[in-house]
Amino acid sequence: MSENPIVVEATRGGRVESAHRGAGAVVDGDGALVFAFGDIERPVFPRSAVKAMQALALIESGAADRFGLTAQELALACASHSGEAGHVAGAAAMLAKAGLGEDALACGAHWPLSAEATRALARQGREPTPLHNNCSGKHAGFLCAACALGAPSEGYEAPGHVVQREVKAALESVCGEKLDETRRGLDGCSIPTYAISLQALARGFARMATGRGLAVQRAAAARRLLAAISAHPFLVAGTGRFDTRAMHLLGGAAITKTGAEGVFCAALPQLGLGLAVKADDGAGRAAEVMIAALISRFIETPEGFAALTRPKLANWRGAEVGEIRPAGLLAG
Amino acid sequence: MSENPIVVEATRGGRVESAHRGAGAVVDGDGALVFAFGDIERPVFPRSAVKAMQALALIESGAADRFGLTAQELALACASHSGEAGHVAGAAAMLAKAGLGEDALACGAHWPLSAEATRALARQGREPTPLHNNCSGKHAGFLCAACALGAPSEGYEAPGHVVQREVKAALESVCGEKLDETRRGLDGCSIPTYAISLQALARGFARMATGRGLAVQRAAAARRLLAAISAHPFLVAGTGRFDTRAMHLLGGAAITKTGAEGVFCAALPQLGLGLAVKADDGAGRAAEVMIAALISRFIETPEGFAALTRPKLANWRGAEVGEIRPAGLLAG
Repeated sequence: MSENPIVVEATRGGRVESAHRGAGAVVDGDGALVFAFGDIERPVFPRSAVKAMQALALIESGAADRFGLTAQELALACASHSGEAGHVAGAAAMLAKAGLGEDALACGAHWPLSAEATRALARQGREPTPLHNNCSGKHAGFLCAACALGAPSEGYEAPGHVVQREVKAALESVCGEKLDETRRGLDGCSIPTYAISLQALARGFARMATGRGLAVQRAAAARRLLAAISAHPFLVAGTGRFDTRAMHLLGGAAITKTGAEGVFCAALPQLGLGLAVKADDGAGRAAEVMIAALISRFIETPEGFAALTRPKLANWRGAEVGEIRPAGLLAG
Repeated sequence: MSENPIVVEATRGGRVESAHRGAGAVVDGDGALVFAFGDIERPVFPRSAVKAMQALALIESGAADRFGLTAQELALACASHSGEAGHVAGAAAMLAKAGLGEDALACGAHWPLSAEATRALARQGREPTPLHNNCSGKHAGFLCAACALGAPSEGYEAPGHVVQREVKAALESVCGEKLDETRRGLDGCSIPTYAISLQALARGFARMATGRGLAVQRAAAARRLLAAISAHPFLVAGTGRFDTRAMHLLGGAAITKTGAEGVFCAALPQLGLGLAVKADDGAGRAAEVMIAALISRFIETPEGFAALTRPKLANWRGAEVGEIRPAGLLAG
C-alpha cells in the first residue's frame, strides 16, 4: 500500500494519541481533478458509499414509478440506516409495494446500528430481522427493480443476476472505470462490491450532481435520487449519525454518504463537485473528519459544523479528554 | 508521528482493503531489547493495558490482605471487563469488603462492553450503573487501597490523591521511565493516564513477570497479580474477548492485556519476556493481531490460536468475505 499522508489525528491531554493516513479526490463534472492528496488511483472498495449509484437501476428499470415509491423510500434505498422505527417501517412498505415480505431480503439480520434502537428492541423482548439490517432499504430497492425487470426475486444479490449486472453497468458508466471480477469482493450485506479508484468515485459523484456526461434519463434519475437524499437525511442514516447531521446543517449544499472501512463520498451540487476519501486503516472516525474538512474547504459551513470537522472526545463522566481533528494538508 | 511499518492488513475478495501501521517491543527481565519494530521510544498512552501495574498499590497498601480479596477479585482489579453478571457481582463484592457502595465509584456508568449483557439489561428494563463500567474492578481496587491507606475515598481518581500518586510511582519504577504532568492525559474512566514508551512498557511487563529489578515485596505483589489474571481470564475481559480466549488457549504461557486506542501488552513468564505494541491509528483489531503474531514468534501456540492471529471476516449471513492478518515483518 502506498504512503498516504497523515490527515487526521486523535488527541488526549494535548498529545497526539493516534493518527490516520488517507487519500482523497475532488473532481468536477467534466472530470477535472480540483484537489487531491494521497494515492487516488488505487482501487478501493466503496462499500455503502455508492448506494445512490446502485439505486439508479431502481428508477431506470421503471420500478420507482410502477410501485409509486415516495422520495422517502428512494432515500431509504440509498441508506445505511440505523434500524430505527422509521427505517424499518419504510423498508417494509417498499417490499409490500412489490408484493413481497421481509423473507425475500438476502441481506441477513443484525441488531440495529443505533444502540438505542437495539435496546428498545431488547426491552420489547424482540430479535432483529433483515429489516433492521442497515442495508434493508437498498435490498428492498433491488427487489422492486427485479420485479419491474420481470426477473426472479430469488438470487437478486448474486453477481450474475440482472439487477446486479445493471448496478455494475451503472457504476462503470457513471464513474468511468472498467469493473470486472478481479475487482470484486463480497459486501457485508451479501451483494458484490467492486473496487474503484477514489478519482473515479469523485468523478461519479460530480456527474451524479451535474448530469454532465450522463444520458438524459440517467441524469434525471440521479437528480431525483440526490434530491430525495437531501430532503430526507434522517432516512439515509439516523439519529446522531454523521450524514444526517451534516445534511441537516448544510441544507442541500452537500450530499454525503458513508461507506464501511473508512470510505466517504459527497457531492456539492451548487459547485458541481464530487468528493471521495478513504482512510487507509478503515476508520470511520477518520473518514468523517476527512470529508468534513474537505467540504469546509469548498463551501461556507455553519458554526455547528465544527462538531463534525473537529469532534470533541469525552470520557464516561462527560469530561473532555481530547479531540479528533484534521491534520497535515487538511488542517487549517 | 514517525513512519511506522504496515504490520496488519484487512482483506476482502483477495484484495487488501485496509492496512494498519504500528510499533512494538519485546524486552527481557534485564531490560535488553529482544525484538522491535517501528518507533518504540515515543511515549504512548498505555490506557488499560497497565492495569496490573496500577493494581500493585492494592497489594502493597495491605488492602488485599486486610479485606481478604480473593484471586478472582485481584483479577477483576486488573480487568477491562465486559459488564457480564460475574464481573458486576465481583466489583460489588470488593466494594462491600471495604464497606462501600457503588456510589463511591468515580468511573462513570456505561452500557456493558458485551452486546449480549447490554441486551440482557435492557430486557430486564434496567439501566447501567458504574458497576457495569469496564473499569469498575480497578476502581473498586483503588477504593480498597484508599481505605487501607487511611485516605479519603472521595477524590481517589484525582492525580494528587495518595492512591494515584502511589500508582504513578509504581508505573515509573516498574517501567523505568520518568512520568510527569506533561505526559498526563485523562482516561475514559476519569483517572490520569501517563504516556510511556513501548520499550519501557515491555520492560515493565518483563519485570512484572520475572521480578528482576523489583524490590522483594513488589516482586511478590506482581507475581500474585499475574497469577490471579492467569487463573481467571474470564474476569479480566469476558465472553469471546481476545484476552479471555488467548489466556484460555495458552494456559499460563502468556498473560495479555488490552488497552484502548490500539495498545496491547503481554508477559511471557516462562521466557521472562515483556511485550508492548501500539497501532498508530488506535485500532483494537490491529493491536490484537499484532500481539498475537508477536506471541506466536516466541512460544508454541495451539492450532486454535490462528483464530486470533488471523481472524476471518464474515458478512451478516456468515459467508467469509476476508480476513485480518499480520503483514510485513510480522507476517510468516
